[in-house]
Amino acid sequence: MKRFFSPHQTGHAPLRELNNGEWMDFAESPARVSSMLAALGQCEAPIDHGLGPILAVHDADYVAFLQSAHRDWLKAGRSGDAIGYAFPVVGRRKLDLSRIDGRLGQYGFDAATPIASGTWDAAYWGAQTALSAFDAVAGGGHCGFALCRPPGHHSGKDYFGGYCFLNNAAIVAQRAVDSGLGPVAVLDVDYHHGNGTQDIFYERGDVLFASIHADPAMDYPYFWGHADETGQGEGEGATFNQPLARGTTWAGYEPALDKALNAISQFGAKFLVISYGADTFEADPISFLKLTTQDMHTMGQRISTLALPCVTVMEGGYNIEALGSNVDAFLSGLEGG
Amino acid sequence: MKRFFSPHQTGHAPLRELNNGEWMDFAESPARVSSMLAALGQCEAPIDHGLGPILAVHDADYVAFLQSAHRDWLKAGRSGDAIGYAFPVVGRRKLDLSRIDGRLGQYGFDAATPIASGTWDAAYWGAQTALSAFDAVAGGGHCGFALCRPPGHHSGKDYFGGYCFLNNAAIVAQRAVDSGLGPVAVLDVDYHHGNGTQDIFYERGDVLFASIHADPAMDYPYFWGHADETGQGEGEGATFNQPLARGTTWAGYEPALDKALNAISQFGAKFLVISYGADTFEADPISFLKLTTQDMHTMGQRISTLALPCVTVMEGGYNIEALGSNVDAFLSGLEGG
Repeated sequence: MKRFFSPHQTGHAPLRELNNGEWMDFAESPARVSSMLAALGQCEAPIDHGLGPILAVHDADYVAFLQSAHRDWLKAGRSGDAIGYAFPVVGRRKLDLSRIDGRLGQYGFDAATPIASGTWDAAYWGAQTALSAFDAVAGGGHCGFALCRPPGHHSGKDYFGGYCFLNNAAIVAQRAVDSGLGPVAVLDVDYHHGNGTQDIFYERGDVLFASIHADPAMDYPYFWGHADETGQGEGEGATFNQPLARGTTWAGYEPALDKALNAISQFGAKFLVISYGADTFEADPISFLKLTTQDMHTMGQRISTLALPCVTVMEGGYNIEALGSNVDAFLSGLEGG
Repeated sequence: MKRFFSPHQTGHAPLRELNNGEWMDFAESPARVSSMLAALGQCEAPIDHGLGPILAVHDADYVAFLQSAHRDWLKAGRSGDAIGYAFPVVGRRKLDLSRIDGRLGQYGFDAATPIASGTWDAAYWGAQTALSAFDAVAGGGHCGFALCRPPGHHSGKDYFGGYCFLNNAAIVAQRAVDSGLGPVAVLDVDYHHGNGTQDIFYERGDVLFASIHADPAMDYPYFWGHADETGQGEGEGATFNQPLARGTTWAGYEPALDKALNAISQFGAKFLVISYGADTFEADPISFLKLTTQDMHTMGQRISTLALPCVTVMEGGYNIEALGSNVDAFLSGLEGG
């Protein structure tokens, strides 16, 4: 399996986030990359595909906001990382706001995703990394892995949040559709629901979104990922959420995975995108499912039975020490190892 | 003019708020009350009207949330003030969330409005204070003043934010409508747009909302208060926003006030509610209009020419030293003094 990574992605390095009413060290840290690179060995550098495939998923005004947000923050006389404090609840519409604080709330949905000086560059190269993994598969490889960081699945077409800025999984899925390789299924096995991916494809029938995640009644992102969200319009039935209770082990995870794989087969998917998060790991510091490293391997093996061309993009996982070996276990399982 | 205040309102005393990416001392502090009481002298204690008139404006689930939010925060193992970090951007709907952090985002629209142990009690008695001022006017007085704190005009029927939890102005306006004293006009002269009041009456033709405020392209609450928001459905034309540029003095404020007063006359209002904020004052620490204490007096005089029965509810104003004399200047002007 070809593996891709760009060192640009470590340039996104906010110092802290708002959590439980206090500042805490930013959990989605560049140290995550070191852990993965140590376990995975050499990754290829991505090819620059430009903004085109990003704009096939994200709104142009949103992308322009991301590009200038940290500069605008500094221009406003601030130091450190840009962080919003006001968010539109109702009556949201496109507005031409001039103040950075308003724009941070306009395009963000939380106060836990700071924008640092290197954020745009890191997010951009994360998307290029994902697109390069797609190229490798479209060009005949069976599987590709994109070591994306920051992650992407909480980002919608015009919003950031949950450590995410550009939706790498959606960008790859859209690229696959545009390349005539669909129908496409996105399987999201991160601990948290991939609300951005869901939103992007919610009214579309050509991309299935299947997610297994912690129950959003109790866990981030709260406002999406409930079992009764099944898609809308042409997308009705093409969203499949399976929320799990905190503390669920492989015994409870496995049947949910089987149902998701079954849905992907029934959908007739010809191309698979996996949003992989290692935060389902039993010792993840901010998450509460109970999978072991061996379970990650089994999960990869089980998914490989779909026998679909497939791109895995990296999402969360915050136990730095075990992150590399968890990713490696998953990928080797996926390769049928 | 009868003046009302309940000491319960000083029980809302959060320590800090998120501002410009940093903690700062909570600006909407109980010290504001001392400044006003020193200038105004004795206020009457409000009568308890119960939850009925509050629930005539606010959703029951939202009120239940406010009542238990700080207890739920402590139950979750936290200390200090409850503060949210995640806010729904799109697809917002009523959800049954169990985690306090999700519920803070569900019912809040910013990360700058902490809920402390005394918040509900203070907000409740603020509403009672406003209702008691209404009683005084409905009973034959010409004007009443409610020293409400926390303020109210940023709070919608199911959301808090901008230091506000219960919309005192809307509760009084609704009470006036329910008492057959309408049509009602709400004149909002706080520095910030009264988005909560606007939202509550946006589709209604029996309450006019007229606001003069800093341009939301640059100032909080950003997502509401733009000039092209004019109401909807039966409320079309019954919302009148006049955003002003930072730095505007009385020379620029006066014509806007005249237009608002003219709109109130044309609307045929028979009862007036004033959302008064002293943060239009030239030396307000977080605001940028340039009115003097004398201008406050003139503003009150000008409004008194409407010759309508009227309840003034206190909104913002953060220059503690000058707060009392600004309020006093406004009220004495309003009394035709």
